[in-house]
Amino acid sequence: MTENSLGDIARQATAHIDEDRLWRRHMEMSEFGAIPNNGVNRQALSPTDVAARETLIGWARARNFTISQDEIGNLFIRRRGDGSNAVPVMTGSHMDSQPCGGRFDGIYGVLAGFEVLEALEDANIVTMRPIDVVAWTNEEGSRFDPGGMGSMVFTGVAKVDDFAHVRDSDGKYFAHALEETLRATTVDSERPTKHPVKAYMEAHIEQGPVLEDSGNTIGAVTGIQGSRRFQVNITGESAHAGTAPLKSRRDALQAALRCLSDLNTVMADPDDILRYTVGKLIIAPNSPNAVASGAEFSIDLRHPDEAVLERLSKEIGEACTKAAPPCDIEVMQTFRKTPSDFTPEIVNAVESSAQALGFPAIQLPSGAFHDAGMMASFCPSAMIFVPCAGGISHNEAEYATASDLAAGAKVLAACLVDLAAE
Amino acid sequence: MTENSLGDIARQATAHIDEDRLWRRHMEMSEFGAIPNNGVNRQALSPTDVAARETLIGWARARNFTISQDEIGNLFIRRRGDGSNAVPVMTGSHMDSQPCGGRFDGIYGVLAGFEVLEALEDANIVTMRPIDVVAWTNEEGSRFDPGGMGSMVFTGVAKVDDFAHVRDSDGKYFAHALEETLRATTVDSERPTKHPVKAYMEAHIEQGPVLEDSGNTIGAVTGIQGSRRFQVNITGESAHAGTAPLKSRRDALQAALRCLSDLNTVMADPDDILRYTVGKLIIAPNSPNAVASGAEFSIDLRHPDEAVLERLSKEIGEACTKAAPPCDIEVMQTFRKTPSDFTPEIVNAVESSAQALGFPAIQLPSGAFHDAGMMASFCPSAMIFVPCAGGISHNEAEYATASDLAAGAKVLAACLVDLAAE
Repeated sequence: MTENSLGDIARQATAHIDEDRLWRRHMEMSEFGAIPNNGVNRQALSPTDVAARETLIGWARARNFTISQDEIGNLFIRRRGDGSNAVPVMTGSHMDSQPCGGRFDGIYGVLAGFEVLEALEDANIVTMRPIDVVAWTNEEGSRFDPGGMGSMVFTGVAKVDDFAHVRDSDGKYFAHALEETLRATTVDSERPTKHPVKAYMEAHIEQGPVLEDSGNTIGAVTGIQGSRRFQVNITGESAHAGTAPLKSRRDALQAALRCLSDLNTVMADPDDILRYTVGKLIIAPNSPNAVASGAEFSIDLRHPDEAVLERLSKEIGEACTKAAPPCDIEVMQTFRKTPSDFTPEIVNAVESSAQALGFPAIQLPSGAFHDAGMMASFCPSAMIFVPCAGGISHNEAEYATASDLAAGAKVLAACLVDLAAE
Repeated sequence: MTENSLGDIARQATAHIDEDRLWRRHMEMSEFGAIPNNGVNRQALSPTDVAARETLIGWARARNFTISQDEIGNLFIRRRGDGSNAVPVMTGSHMDSQPCGGRFDGIYGVLAGFEVLEALEDANIVTMRPIDVVAWTNEEGSRFDPGGMGSMVFTGVAKVDDFAHVRDSDGKYFAHALEETLRATTVDSERPTKHPVKAYMEAHIEQGPVLEDSGNTIGAVTGIQGSRRFQVNITGESAHAGTAPLKSRRDALQAALRCLSDLNTVMADPDDILRYTVGKLIIAPNSPNAVASGAEFSIDLRHPDEAVLERLSKEIGEACTKAAPPCDIEVMQTFRKTPSDFTPEIVNAVESSAQALGFPAIQLPSGAFHDAGMMASFCPSAMIFVPCAGGISHNEAEYATASDLAAGAKVLAACLVDLAAE
């Protein structure tokens, strides 16, 4: 496929993608929740999230797009099509960030989608189907656990009420923060969840090193690996560090150490495909001169093969139960997502559009979770990755170049125009 | 030695120890800083510490004892002797507690000493030497680090100014809190530090299981084991749990795990004499889906043999430096106390007095640090331990029986009367 093999309208749309405008929008959005060193801390349903939503709505109003919102606060910006009652094509991502996040994770997918809508306006292109840009509520899950709430509720996998008990670290209920956000956001109409969607596409920074290392600009994402999350709670007994004989101790930190050592053996993967992370470990009372009475840690497990995840999940329970005594232990699976496969036709379209536009492209799987993983079981879906410097993400140092961001938006424009014509 | 072998005056003094009064005083003191489940949180130089000091002073005034205070806020209650200018005998402990402390740690030594003074009053006994009850400032070190400030300054090991930079977790300076306490406490006179002391004795709950397990009521403490404290800081690099290949990670939690595993090998002690504790471990950013960029942990090491401590300290540095890569590591010694030996004559007097009074007694070392450890290098010193339930201390569940507390006070009375007669 060459550039000429792009349809006329697609070529016209991509030509109107404005690299400077797209970059400027990123910089404007990064002011909401700005932290030192170019970082962003924009927690879901926080005042900064609301301010970012209102800013997007302001830009949408200036273009006369339609704004709607569903019961979980997913925000939709629609550019109408001329097909009456045609099912929309949808694109987007999320606007919330990690506590020490960067300027591109999530927000890029929303702004790339919005850039496509603006390019279509500027090019006076009329599509048959409406194109919706969606900003999903709480993808990160860092303030309100679990992440992916917005796309879970939209696709019917969960109900808003399922999260009624969820609170942030200040004790504030998710429901309360949601209500405040819904009230503060001025939309044209309410939108039902689970309405038909023709196809969903999501642009995102890779959050890994593959594109950069291989010299590719565009990643056509084939799917998202499956993941499991576990919470392990160990109960020991506190004692005085200076007096309690080691043999009589029920030291929760030492029990955690035994569990983690044995888990490293269980998780050994010479092919380095498994992603196994213990990122959180909390000791109680956490005092230098007191034997630990408690230890809790998280296990995050990701792999493209569900059978591998299933086997490892069992072995986690067995290894921990064996290693913990004389302490007590409780192992709970807190999250499970089976691997998602994206729609091959759209994945191929991403790759070929990229090549037609002169961008080196490859197909690759996603290591990170994305809302597109939820959408993949709801409608034809795919993702477009662009490189991020050093593969660094969830970090203030997260960086993508203006030209790579624009390249991703061009590929997105080409694909959406085709999908909206079908 | 039988009960008859106690001197007449010693026998008279012990007979006037009032078990109910001693218990009641403990319960009254436990109101200052009371927390749920019978716990006490009475931080050094806090308003509750001042209130406890004022209560003790009130009891002392009612008995016409003399009250003085030195520059670090050590509080002294004196019952005069009839020897002109005789160097005093001293007993006491501390009134501050751990944040989740109990009703006996520290305060028992002060109240047992005060009970002896009252018993001597009630028995109309005149001693040659004055007997001072001291409440040392900030033994615990939980609000202002390090602990043992009062006895360090009294014995000349440290100066008040050495602690000028020390602040509590609210940012309040030690010097400021000390000044407030000195001002709020009404004493008869100032007392110089480093004045001569004939002998020092300290009664304390054991804070370990030995007396209870062996069925003994009195522990004649032979000395305090030496201790070292280390702080280990590991620096890795944060990464996305779902994308970063394990082989490329610089995971600070995994580096800590390697260090702690190797340290367990280094610390292996078949005789179970070594007290080795990692009680504090903090992970950053401590998020389930982020590879840890930082890990810091504490090492608390105690042993009666200084040579063992010296060897292990070296091996800690070597083991950690070897285990940390590809992460960076820094190992700092933050505290060092050489072992203290108590005065054999007084230790033997504690044991024989106990036996003469019909209390089963043994000699044993102290695992925990005490102000008596500082005093041991300043004047003849010893300690008396009484059992505490389950060996539990630094905990709301800390418990000692009224009769064991009284037993310790009787042995203290017998020893002090003899020392005050010499």
